Amino acid sequence: MTIQDLFYPRAVAVTGSMAEGKLGYELVKQLVEGGAANIYACNPKRQSAFGVPAFENVSQIGQAVDLVVIASPAASVAGVLRECGAAGIRAAVVISSGFSETGNQAGEIELMQVARQFGIRVVGPNCAGIVNTAHHLFATLETRPPAGKMAFISQSGAFGGAVLSWAEEQGVGISKFVSYGNRADLDEIELLPYLAGDAETSVVALYIESVSDGRAFRQVVSEFTRVKPLVVIKSGRSKSGQRAALSHTGSMAGSDAVYEAVLAESGAIRVSSVEEMFDLCKGFTSLSCPKGNKIAIVTNSGGPGILTADQAERAGLEVGEISLDLKANLKGFLPPNCSLNNPIDLTVQGSGDQYQRTLTTVLNEFDSAVAINVATPYLDSLALASGIASAAQSSGKPVAANFMAGPVVKQSIRFLESNGIPNFPSGERAAVVLAHMARYARQADRVIPYPPAPAPAGESPRASGSIVLEPDAMAWLRRNGFPVPPFRLAATPDEALQACQAIGFPVVMKVVSPEILHKSDFGGVILNIQDESSAALAYAKLAGIARDKFFSGVIVYPMVMKTQEIILGISIDPQFGPVILLGAGGIYTEIMRDISIRLTPVSNQTAWTMVRELKSFPVLQGARGQAGGDLDALAALISKVSELPFLFPQVSELDINPVFLLAQGVLIGDIRVVLRR
Amino acid sequence: MTIQDLFYPRAVAVTGSMAEGKLGYELVKQLVEGGAANIYACNPKRQSAFGVPAFENVSQIGQAVDLVVIASPAASVAGVLRECGAAGIRAAVVISSGFSETGNQAGEIELMQVARQFGIRVVGPNCAGIVNTAHHLFATLETRPPAGKMAFISQSGAFGGAVLSWAEEQGVGISKFVSYGNRADLDEIELLPYLAGDAETSVVALYIESVSDGRAFRQVVSEFTRVKPLVVIKSGRSKSGQRAALSHTGSMAGSDAVYEAVLAESGAIRVSSVEEMFDLCKGFTSLSCPKGNKIAIVTNSGGPGILTADQAERAGLEVGEISLDLKANLKGFLPPNCSLNNPIDLTVQGSGDQYQRTLTTVLNEFDSAVAINVATPYLDSLALASGIASAAQSSGKPVAANFMAGPVVKQSIRFLESNGIPNFPSGERAAVVLAHMARYARQADRVIPYPPAPAPAGESPRASGSIVLEPDAMAWLRRNGFPVPPFRLAATPDEALQACQAIGFPVVMKVVSPEILHKSDFGGVILNIQDESSAALAYAKLAGIARDKFFSGVIVYPMVMKTQEIILGISIDPQFGPVILLGAGGIYTEIMRDISIRLTPVSNQTAWTMVRELKSFPVLQGARGQAGGDLDALAALISKVSELPFLFPQVSELDINPVFLLAQGVLIGDIRVVLRR
Repeated sequence: MTIQDLFYPRAVAVTGSMAEGKLGYELVKQLVEGGAANIYACNPKRQSAFGVPAFENVSQIGQAVDLVVIASPAASVAGVLRECGAAGIRAAVVISSGFSETGNQAGEIELMQVARQFGIRVVGPNCAGIVNTAHHLFATLETRPPAGKMAFISQSGAFGGAVLSWAEEQGVGISKFVSYGNRADLDEIELLPYLAGDAETSVVALYIESVSDGRAFRQVVSEFTRVKPLVVIKSGRSKSGQRAALSHTGSMAGSDAVYEAVLAESGAIRVSSVEEMFDLCKGFTSLSCPKGNKIAIVTNSGGPGILTADQAERAGLEVGEISLDLKANLKGFLPPNCSLNNPIDLTVQGSGDQYQRTLTTVLNEFDSAVAINVATPYLDSLALASGIASAAQSSGKPVAANFMAGPVVKQSIRFLESNGIPNFPSGERAAVVLAHMARYARQADRVIPYPPAPAPAGESPRASGSIVLEPDAMAWLRRNGFPVPPFRLAATPDEALQACQAIGFPVVMKVVSPEILHKSDFGGVILNIQDESSAALAYAKLAGIARDKFFSGVIVYPMVMKTQEIILGISIDPQFGPVILLGAGGIYTEIMRDISIRLTPVSNQTAWTMVRELKSFPVLQGARGQAGGDLDALAALISKVSELPFLFPQVSELDINPVFLLAQGVLIGDIRVVLRR
Repeated sequence: MTIQDLFYPRAVAVTGSMAEGKLGYELVKQLVEGGAANIYACNPKRQSAFGVPAFENVSQIGQAVDLVVIASPAASVAGVLRECGAAGIRAAVVISSGFSETGNQAGEIELMQVARQFGIRVVGPNCAGIVNTAHHLFATLETRPPAGKMAFISQSGAFGGAVLSWAEEQGVGISKFVSYGNRADLDEIELLPYLAGDAETSVVALYIESVSDGRAFRQVVSEFTRVKPLVVIKSGRSKSGQRAALSHTGSMAGSDAVYEAVLAESGAIRVSSVEEMFDLCKGFTSLSCPKGNKIAIVTNSGGPGILTADQAERAGLEVGEISLDLKANLKGFLPPNCSLNNPIDLTVQGSGDQYQRTLTTVLNEFDSAVAINVATPYLDSLALASGIASAAQSSGKPVAANFMAGPVVKQSIRFLESNGIPNFPSGERAAVVLAHMARYARQADRVIPYPPAPAPAGESPRASGSIVLEPDAMAWLRRNGFPVPPFRLAATPDEALQACQAIGFPVVMKVVSPEILHKSDFGGVILNIQDESSAALAYAKLAGIARDKFFSGVIVYPMVMKTQEIILGISIDPQFGPVILLGAGGIYTEIMRDISIRLTPVSNQTAWTMVRELKSFPVLQGARGQAGGDLDALAALISKVSELPFLFPQVSELDINPVFLLAQGVLIGDIRVVLRR
């Protein structure tokens, strides 16, 4: 198993110049200072550094070497790798840069050809290296972090290095670290399954700017999060961010909304700052997850307790009232000036013993607690820390602390953290961590059904080039069993009147023209036509709109009366493939961003989850005396639409806007399809 | 001027026990160690501490004393204050507790009677004291903070103390600090105008749990923010938070949504954590405000640059592309592997000189910049810091830094901050600060018209007790010139038919009963009645609904066809008085929280601002081919409704739901009024 070779090598060869200050020299220095055993230097000059044995190349070492760390010039890397392959080395970390990131794709392809030929697995090139604190392996130029239970995988080397530098100050230790640079070979797709089984790691943080294979990523993350929590920083939410990610990584970053949906569905916790990442990892590495949502807050100062309660509720926890039973218990040992609501305010007189008894009492009914100490120079914070630690230990439930602030609490924080109580700079941050942990615990055993993609079948809609006219698209949907209303195409005023009579008034009439795709914007849709004279006027108006354009006639539908409207869209994401978007509320979809997104196809169950995710769900379901819609029929439609891009691979875009949500069933109101050319 | 006496006393008397460890002793210790001049101890035993002159009471001092700091037992405070008054002292800080916060309202009233008799201004009681670093005055038991340009006013003493403890670590210095405890006398209402004119203070942070006088608070904050920025932490957003604030302060906390609206309109910056408060104060005390929204990001690592760009856009800044001219300039001195999009990525090879020239170049066109250095142990961060500082100085524009992380950047951060460049733990936090500063600069010269409240006039609607029936409310509105549709009341089937004929089909019929206030929830509203037979059925159904209730008949209106709907509500906030709420989108008001709130009355101009604040504004205005509504008429209605609680002070609640937003004008669709009993 070569990932094991990577992290637990019996011996390590370093290639590259050993002149002082050069990469090879610095790498050997790090490895030696970090305490790795059996290090060898390899370079044409047989130059050594820090007294390690030196050889011209790896074949001469004569010992079993499991890992090579390559800092040789780009042009020589393939050759070095070939020697490593011949010498039986199966794991390589290529620190050297000068490959695809500078336009040298050929060099990277050559490197990987050699690696595949010899079965060598590669981290890099152009990476910041790897760390395994349990094996004293620091094959990186970055700061050597303290040991701990957090693993970190970073697409960016520099960012990875910054995280290692910051770990100690943030009070979090690192188990394993991988910076995979250009990801020519290994990335999170294979590292996550390995770390799922790694006894040294209890949480993984991942920094990505893009993924290599969207569907594989979703699968791996879904499986990983059933075993351990995964905290993800994915950059590039904004337009400018996406522009930069594009130029930065040379890979096309997918739409951020799709990443957001995939990460959420797969159970990953997405954060947007390094501080939040450390906060979560600190929580997950030091506490068990809360078994429920009820959080108690115990403080010696009202204000910070309230701010924490506010944030806890915003984050989804329940800051429930203290039960009468608990209150009676608390009154037995707390003075009358304490406030026994939640937050419980012990006042500035709160003692270590009171913290201990109060927390022990409330944790009988609550799932977790935040203990706040707003310290003053004249207060014995260490006694409070000790009371809190003892309550946490005896209750066995997660307790996070917020001791504020500065030098007066330094020693107490050290005491807390060495006793397994993480301290956070604010109660608010502690509450956010516990909220994420409770949510993670709730979802941990959930399995999402990813239905298999159906095989291509049948004919695409009739089209000229990439454009499909509405009648052709509707006919195609009807052939495929979709709920399409009756409709007629009419190319003359007489045909239009006949169509209206056949459909039955009131009707809707729309212009049909390959040059008018956004009909509403051009007044190309006329609603609620009640009689023949209105129909004649409507036809004349629509023909007028298309006067200078290619005019295929009008399409006539029955008028659907006031009903709720839904939007369904299919697009093809460059990273993740076909994606379905559900939006509610007509124009509100865009303005309120009331949408749900999934990779297709989706099962009926997932379709229902999407419907429930909409903010408008209560409205769709029927709120305030308004009738609800047939959401079973909607879910069935979502699931059926989600198969279209696989059944008809020529479809590159599809918009159904609106779907009419009726009391019984659903109806497709309009459709726009674009085919691949 | 006694607030001047408070902060710049020529001499300070401390009353209370001088036994070691007692409050008086500790206060004298703080004052002496802090460097205050002319300190006197006063206590019945004439005990001294730290060698300051001791007297039995203040009258014996025989020197001009401007400030007394009282730590005597609660029962003796009024007496002590009387002696101070007699001795000519006009400023008192009462540290002693045991007043209204423990139920001793009488003690607090007595204290204030004495204070008013002698014209003494009081901070406290039950407070953590005051600080004026410029005068070396530390009349507090809390940590003595470093001097700086941030003033801090805190309703909570403990929270105030924590902020003082944390200031140094957060890199922010304090000018003045006031903890006003039970606010028997002085609070932000008088302190803010004083601090507006204080040359030592460039930003004020305020921690409040409630306000004493909502309208005065709004006025003072509005005036203050035209002069200096104000950062506010107001706790109690959540239900549990409000419950705790209630029991904690003994004052009734107003609805948080009203605080939110008042703070926003008055130009204060509301934050929800101490860290964000320090971040903003650090920005405001060290940088000038950006003159516009365009921000440039210069980094040596792609990822953190992108995360910063993401956050900058979320916070409202514009991370615009670098113009072709600027790019041409940059290409003149940057190597080709640098990315010249915004963020500009100088790569890990970026030098101090490159940072300096890049920033200087882009700040010609951009309003502010964030400079990021993801440092490694082998990189000369100090050179980068120096380049950044020099660019900031020559450009005169605000530059914030993010040097990451840990020990490798400690020295560089010190260098940056001593050169006026604030460093933040992440680029994201730096971006948020610059976004707030740019927004503050934009609003600084804005004056909000607060129209005067009109005098009571005319009759309230006819009512029985507090309940007003819909026909009476509608008649009252019509009398007062509101846009009410024609309507008829009918108490028999025959009358109902006549009413329908008089109004003209189609009509709406609603049940009228003092026992059915939420008509829709009971099926008490029947829409779109097309003919006489439907009208008869409708009447029978409504009479049936009211079968076991008091039935006043039905009200008949013309049917208003598909139109946009608005909600208007008036309520009386305990802290702020009459408040108006505008909501858009029918049921969406609640689900999307698409609302705007103001204290009443509002001018026509403010009414327009409220309309524009709605997320649905584009829909109301007419989006995607949908017709827009008459927003001038809506604004006029909002302004007119906002006067009602002053014109008719008996009105304690009023809901107009819906307002029909027509293409021409508006119509009141329904109204509910509750009167004071």
